[in-house]
Amino acid sequence: MDGAGEGSVQKVATPQDRLSALLSEDMAAVNALIRDRMASEHAPRIPEVTAHLVEAGGKRLRPLLTLGAARMFGCAGDDHVKLAATVEFIHTATLLHDDVVDESQRRRGRPTANLLWDNKSSVLVGDYLFSRSFQLMVEAGNLRVLDILANASATIAEGEVLQLTAAQDLATDERIYLQVIRGKTAALFAAATEVGGIIAGASDAEVTALRNYGDALGIAFQIVDDILDYGGSDATIGKNTGDDFRERKLTLPLIKAVAKADAEEREFWVRVIEKGDQREGDLAHAMVILRRHDAISAARADAFAWAGRAQSALDNLPVHPLRNILSELAEFVVRRLS
Amino acid sequence: MDGAGEGSVQKVATPQDRLSALLSEDMAAVNALIRDRMASEHAPRIPEVTAHLVEAGGKRLRPLLTLGAARMFGCAGDDHVKLAATVEFIHTATLLHDDVVDESQRRRGRPTANLLWDNKSSVLVGDYLFSRSFQLMVEAGNLRVLDILANASATIAEGEVLQLTAAQDLATDERIYLQVIRGKTAALFAAATEVGGIIAGASDAEVTALRNYGDALGIAFQIVDDILDYGGSDATIGKNTGDDFRERKLTLPLIKAVAKADAEEREFWVRVIEKGDQREGDLAHAMVILRRHDAISAARADAFAWAGRAQSALDNLPVHPLRNILSELAEFVVRRLS
Repeated sequence: MDGAGEGSVQKVATPQDRLSALLSEDMAAVNALIRDRMASEHAPRIPEVTAHLVEAGGKRLRPLLTLGAARMFGCAGDDHVKLAATVEFIHTATLLHDDVVDESQRRRGRPTANLLWDNKSSVLVGDYLFSRSFQLMVEAGNLRVLDILANASATIAEGEVLQLTAAQDLATDERIYLQVIRGKTAALFAAATEVGGIIAGASDAEVTALRNYGDALGIAFQIVDDILDYGGSDATIGKNTGDDFRERKLTLPLIKAVAKADAEEREFWVRVIEKGDQREGDLAHAMVILRRHDAISAARADAFAWAGRAQSALDNLPVHPLRNILSELAEFVVRRLS
Repeated sequence: MDGAGEGSVQKVATPQDRLSALLSEDMAAVNALIRDRMASEHAPRIPEVTAHLVEAGGKRLRPLLTLGAARMFGCAGDDHVKLAATVEFIHTATLLHDDVVDESQRRRGRPTANLLWDNKSSVLVGDYLFSRSFQLMVEAGNLRVLDILANASATIAEGEVLQLTAAQDLATDERIYLQVIRGKTAALFAAATEVGGIIAGASDAEVTALRNYGDALGIAFQIVDDILDYGGSDATIGKNTGDDFRERKLTLPLIKAVAKADAEEREFWVRVIEKGDQREGDLAHAMVILRRHDAISAARADAFAWAGRAQSALDNLPVHPLRNILSELAEFVVRRLS
């Protein structure tokens, strides 16, 4: 079991592998464009930092969503390639800034840029990638697409700030949690599928369906990640367990357990989360409380419900092999919990 | 003498005061739009941090440039107001990130946001303001304007990274310095005037003139700031002197002195700038060397030359009271050195 997010796919051909295979020509163009645009004539530090992250073997899930949505509607030209690269640049920029904010040490199994270089480089190179993404989307020349990506960027940043202020606050409820993960994850998934459809000429109803799919997929994806941070369905401590607990983040399993806490448990949560006074054995004790209140199972049920919503959204799209793969992808995302 | 940049205007009506007075109605609309858009429904930390900086009494020079350029061509509607607010949001976002990168303690006479809150808030709220600026410029709905602002954003970020890697490096020459200050300052000045002209329907030749004016004004402005950091024309140590020296930044006065250094001076520069081994009296000694090589006077001559270039660019614009004020503004920027 591992909590590395999209890195944790199995060796057999997963829906994402098949999506990659079907869109391999487009993805090659996206990768070439990313390499081309992350260069900087004047500041060699930029491609150094970016290459470290971009070429670290991320699965490129978000650009695949854009390409998949676009190819379902038979797009021409290369605007879908530009938008797919845009989405990956936005994602990479947010990872660089996230690692500074979370003071992370490792990402995708390697030391983070803030550790290898410094926080300054991560902040400024993140800004550079944001502005590169912005140039790319302007090149695609579609004002509706620009509006969607501008709104997604604002939602992402707002979600990150909300997460910062909601951390350590036991009053954080499921409504606030949903706002946070819509910002940090679902907003970009939803924009990725939506702009793919728009650039390929999908109808308004189809664009809405694509957006709803991306939104629900992103929410399911993030709930699963948050469950895996507590060891997954069987809630056992592994090497990747407990980061959120140590960072005092209020994620879904914890929120569900806090809602059912008795006086003694509440005292425990106040100490470890609000006051940040964590001692040896606290993570194990937290997981005992999570199991006692079926918090993991309840969060797991929510993840499956969101995956189901993602699949239902696809019903409004025309029959297409890519539609089937996107449906299987939604199932695959939550199957990591089985 | 003070090095607070645009804050250091005199009590008499300066060209910038007169620009503010002439454009007061537009500026009121810009300020209202800024207050409206820096709000966040979900994350109250955002307006807290932003208000601290936005309402700290900055002189709003950049939005004034956009409004001035637009009004010279008699624009209608409110797109020029949106673009002026866009420019100020970009500026504020870069200030937040700069203060994290420079580990600054004070800005506009007040403690910085990174000190009052934390680096995390400054990084994420900066990202939020970038995305808000992006939404505003998309609302203005002009692809040429979007292209210019996207390119300016990339140039700004690239300049910041270049400054980071050029610091502490005695090989930094005037060519690299010009790239750095074009990025950190002139790119946004140039974009501010350029998009003002475009949105108001100026001709291509006029837009080019506005761009050249903003570029040269920004370069003059930054050279002056860098000279004031060494105490201005008389190069005496005051309370705002020596920040760049302590941060080991290669600015124009230093670059000019290093280029003329004899063996002993070079040894000094290697110790204090490259190795960062600074002792008491080193700043005073540095300023003796600067005077010895007329480095301040030479940098001052460059600043006046750029101000002259800014004024010459205006010759390509129609006669207009605003044109006269912009011309006086260029002179005013360097007059801080007299």
